[in-house]
Amino acid sequence: MSSGWIDEEYQGIVRTGFRLKRRIMRRRSPFQTVEVVETKGHGRLLLIDGMTMVSERDEFVYHEMIAHVPLFVHPRPRRVLVIGGGDGGTVREVLRHRSVERCVLAEIDPVVVEASRRHIPRTAASLSDPRCEIRIGDGVKFVRETREHFDVVIVDSTEPFGPAKELFGPAFYRDVRRILTDEGIVVSQAGSPFYEIATIRNLRRILRPIFPISDAYLFTNQTYPGGLWAFSFASKGLRPVRDFRAARVARARLPLRWYNSEIHAAAFALPQFLKDELSRR
Amino acid sequence: MSSGWIDEEYQGIVRTGFRLKRRIMRRRSPFQTVEVVETKGHGRLLLIDGMTMVSERDEFVYHEMIAHVPLFVHPRPRRVLVIGGGDGGTVREVLRHRSVERCVLAEIDPVVVEASRRHIPRTAASLSDPRCEIRIGDGVKFVRETREHFDVVIVDSTEPFGPAKELFGPAFYRDVRRILTDEGIVVSQAGSPFYEIATIRNLRRILRPIFPISDAYLFTNQTYPGGLWAFSFASKGLRPVRDFRAARVARARLPLRWYNSEIHAAAFALPQFLKDELSRR
Repeated sequence: MSSGWIDEEYQGIVRTGFRLKRRIMRRRSPFQTVEVVETKGHGRLLLIDGMTMVSERDEFVYHEMIAHVPLFVHPRPRRVLVIGGGDGGTVREVLRHRSVERCVLAEIDPVVVEASRRHIPRTAASLSDPRCEIRIGDGVKFVRETREHFDVVIVDSTEPFGPAKELFGPAFYRDVRRILTDEGIVVSQAGSPFYEIATIRNLRRILRPIFPISDAYLFTNQTYPGGLWAFSFASKGLRPVRDFRAARVARARLPLRWYNSEIHAAAFALPQFLKDELSRR
Repeated sequence: MSSGWIDEEYQGIVRTGFRLKRRIMRRRSPFQTVEVVETKGHGRLLLIDGMTMVSERDEFVYHEMIAHVPLFVHPRPRRVLVIGGGDGGTVREVLRHRSVERCVLAEIDPVVVEASRRHIPRTAASLSDPRCEIRIGDGVKFVRETREHFDVVIVDSTEPFGPAKELFGPAFYRDVRRILTDEGIVVSQAGSPFYEIATIRNLRRILRPIFPISDAYLFTNQTYPGGLWAFSFASKGLRPVRDFRAARVARARLPLRWYNSEIHAAAFALPQFLKDELSRR
């Protein structure tokens, strides 16, 4: 890293750097290294093992897209489970839906929650909402053992290695199916289709035999390498575009900066190389 | 720049770096500094004044989106003018359309054309097509003085300063309207809505009084800062989505990797912050 910049290197071939103002904290948890820095131009960043998870400037894009797509497809989401997402940004967007009565956050690393609460209130403030329950522990184990059911499960994880590895496996998704209600939906962070197409292809192969509906959608993350980033979408029956009603978005009048009903449908249009790749068996 | 990387710094707050294999050429032309390097992971890059214009790995996204959107809206594009674009990538995509009889490239800087021909044949090979005529000179002057008419004009320029400055002014676009045929369309590189929203807002203000139809569309450029990038679209009457026929794309069977008919429509879905910004007068 050069002086004055904080650089995220990716696959050894590309790096994204942010102008550093000051380092705020850095702590090695049992799972990973958690870091908060202040930048010039992008506000504060939360980094895990050197990868940018949240930038205050553009976190709204990721969090609006991971939350509102499933929550506006489900006709009346009441119970939502977020796995990972200890920064609180996804919970913040989930709780904008008045139908949501309860949002459980299953985060493995308490250091992520503490760091965000202390240094990134923009995302973490939602964690103090009375409808949110924080469960510090392994999300895979939580899903295996809970007797609760959820309308929407959101897998807001890091990349498929380290503590997040099992979140990209079939056993986990069979458990997710079990805890989903009849109209249940699960969406998951699915990596960069441009640089690591294997992640989304593998997720697709895992989801297809478990869920009647599986698809992928895209968004542009300004501060992640390559810009183009994907989520997977799977459900017990609800289709992400056909069963989506734009009128509900209009009625909800949420104060959003990225998501709207046109963006919802557009996000499921996949570039040709990705369509070709995902249609291969 | 650190050793081993070539970094593009943007607005002093963010930078994108590519792992360098070797520097191939660097030349100061009367207009700008033109540079070609070989990277690990992204093939060759063409840089102008330190900004990445073309990466062999992902140039197809930009070039497919700037060319096929207008060429598939126009019912039968025969004559096309490309302003800038001396690397040849846009011309390559234009010439995939069998209806195109003639494509004029008006590039101000012969060094860009020479560097691309010599070092980036993937984009520049199309410049030798007999349907392509290269006019080295000022595109603004060409548009002001030509008596030829075009069905589609593509402004494939650098950012709105240096030699490209006048390409972002009203006088230029009034001349473009004059040389467009009755169903004419003009699209233009319109910057990063995330980092420099003024570029697209100003273009919109210029285009609106000159053309009955004006709009904007988006794509993700993996190697440009911020990922999200915009083109403006303006026409004498053709509407970019309503007058677009997906069946034509299917019939053409072009060997494309990014553009398809779903992507065409989806590209015109704008995020809420940009819709709000562009609807302000």
